[in-house]
Amino acid sequence: MNLCDLSPQYVRAIAPYQPGRPIAEVARELGLAEHDIVKLASNENPLGPSPRALVAIENALANIALYPDGSGYDLKAALTRRFGVPAEQIVLGNGSNDILELVARAFLAPGTSAVFSRHAFAIYALATQAAGAEGIETAAHDFGHDLDAMLDALRADTRVVFIANPNNPTGTWLSNADLLAFLQRVPENVIVVLDEAYGEYLPQDKQSDALVWLQRFPNLVVSRTFSKAYGLAGLRVGYALTSRMVADMMNRVRQPFNVNSLALVAAAAALDDNDFIARSYALNQLGMRQMIQGLLLMGLDYIPSFGNFLAIRIGNATAMYRRLLEKGVIVRPIGNYAMPEYLRVSIGLAAENTQFLQALESALKEQA
Amino acid sequence: MNLCDLSPQYVRAIAPYQPGRPIAEVARELGLAEHDIVKLASNENPLGPSPRALVAIENALANIALYPDGSGYDLKAALTRRFGVPAEQIVLGNGSNDILELVARAFLAPGTSAVFSRHAFAIYALATQAAGAEGIETAAHDFGHDLDAMLDALRADTRVVFIANPNNPTGTWLSNADLLAFLQRVPENVIVVLDEAYGEYLPQDKQSDALVWLQRFPNLVVSRTFSKAYGLAGLRVGYALTSRMVADMMNRVRQPFNVNSLALVAAAAALDDNDFIARSYALNQLGMRQMIQGLLLMGLDYIPSFGNFLAIRIGNATAMYRRLLEKGVIVRPIGNYAMPEYLRVSIGLAAENTQFLQALESALKEQA
Repeated sequence: MNLCDLSPQYVRAIAPYQPGRPIAEVARELGLAEHDIVKLASNENPLGPSPRALVAIENALANIALYPDGSGYDLKAALTRRFGVPAEQIVLGNGSNDILELVARAFLAPGTSAVFSRHAFAIYALATQAAGAEGIETAAHDFGHDLDAMLDALRADTRVVFIANPNNPTGTWLSNADLLAFLQRVPENVIVVLDEAYGEYLPQDKQSDALVWLQRFPNLVVSRTFSKAYGLAGLRVGYALTSRMVADMMNRVRQPFNVNSLALVAAAAALDDNDFIARSYALNQLGMRQMIQGLLLMGLDYIPSFGNFLAIRIGNATAMYRRLLEKGVIVRPIGNYAMPEYLRVSIGLAAENTQFLQALESALKEQA
Repeated sequence: MNLCDLSPQYVRAIAPYQPGRPIAEVARELGLAEHDIVKLASNENPLGPSPRALVAIENALANIALYPDGSGYDLKAALTRRFGVPAEQIVLGNGSNDILELVARAFLAPGTSAVFSRHAFAIYALATQAAGAEGIETAAHDFGHDLDAMLDALRADTRVVFIANPNNPTGTWLSNADLLAFLQRVPENVIVVLDEAYGEYLPQDKQSDALVWLQRFPNLVVSRTFSKAYGLAGLRVGYALTSRMVADMMNRVRQPFNVNSLALVAAAAALDDNDFIARSYALNQLGMRQMIQGLLLMGLDYIPSFGNFLAIRIGNATAMYRRLLEKGVIVRPIGNYAMPEYLRVSIGLAAENTQFLQALESALKEQA
């Protein structure tokens, strides 16, 4: 018998998330040396981790035979000091991917629905589907979220709406004014997930007001991560700031030891490393300018981005992805985001950006 | 409005898993120094991690800003070399807790059921409930699984049966002959999860035959962990060995980066550290004898255990747990396992076992 038939239809229908390819895998496949390969495929921090995180990990290595603190006491205390949100309103996740899934599993089920935008982060659709709920995708506006369309799409059975700000993979951004107006119009019985994974890359005057909104909107879940600007993608730690009620429901479906012990200490140590975040921000700004200048010289179109990546219009993006791969540059084709003409490229160190731009220029010439 | 009402009833009904208390938490509460506290509450390896794991982590620290390899190529390759099971039949988990949840989410849903034994590991019931399925608990036989009762309990809507061998928290063990007979009688459309988290603590002549059965029973899922004998509980890594079909379904509901990068390298390095496993086994045998001798001297009853822990009959276990806590010894009352008279105590280093036995003796005298 086919054991797959035992799974609910919605599980069988899942096409798993396609992650960026690890350097080691590409090196194996192409017979290249790992140090010759540049990976600009997963929006990682090219500066590496906050140095404070490394010190904290070294100090915690002696205790890795012990289970992590399942309540995440120290990290939550650090988050409370930083954001003024009490521990009961914080949920820790195995990356913010886990946060998104906890929302889905706590509030979605067969017979309910979730709303998200076209071109928005792929995990929204996947987590919705895995929970057996119906995903409602709304049309995009200039590759960004159309909040009016999202409001119109809400149904009586809608339990969750997912918003990424800035959005991955398009880099689009919604203003605080627009988001506040949206929150005021969303029914109070719909959970609004505001995914701020890339929030640290916003300039000062565009930083999110979401924490101020938490008291007014108990249905708001602000999702953040240590995987991007904090440089801890390999450790898996994200968090949600929300109301006590929503946090309680999310914690009921959370695995008791979902965040590992090295991630907990590294995140707590890195959280207030403002200098590191400032350097990461500045490097990204410089790299973004370098990339845009290079693209303009080649006459290429791109979507203006508020993240640490750029979606570049390239024609047949899958073919270009392969050509760049052969030159040792890993980027991300985003056909699975209904953008088959676009490549998403992370902003790297100046030398990495140069290597990408040179490989791209050379690939375009070969094509011509 | 009460946002909890938005959650499915089965989520609202979940009483989250109560983990053993971290040393730091107890120290805070009791005003004790952390190094004065002995934790024998979570069945961790008192030897710490395999030294090979620590070397591997040091070598991987430079890359923690990069996402983990979501496919776990290197760890799967190590598991294939060790067990002869191809990568397509392996699923990696954020601890074996994650493996159990992946089975639940891939095969359970409202309208289906799962069967597990009374006094068996608590996560079986929790994962079943979180998936909206009905949990069917069968009566135990001498605190262990009654396989005949479990067969009788299977219904047309049963998709999964969970078996822990050895079982936590009772330490009971099922022979290969009994398990094989069970597998032969379970309908082929029921997934059998054989949780071997404590398998490394079995003597040579009782080691599991489960890998031999994989080819005959595509509905078999063997779940294992690096959290116990391998001493990597803090890192969170477990794995399932099963058929290609079942692995495929589990991977569809798996978070793409569920296992962090330090866990991946540490587990791959530790897997073949046979010397470390042998030392951990020997230490556990010695400690088990020490504990039993001490309990017999106090005239206390216990359940003979094949794990790295003992369930001890103590009368009012919650009260005794508190008294031991005040003496700086953390153990686990298991009233939530329908065993309100029992404490579960992990086997520690000789000095830790002595500290526990002395604290217990002194607490019993105070009680008398």
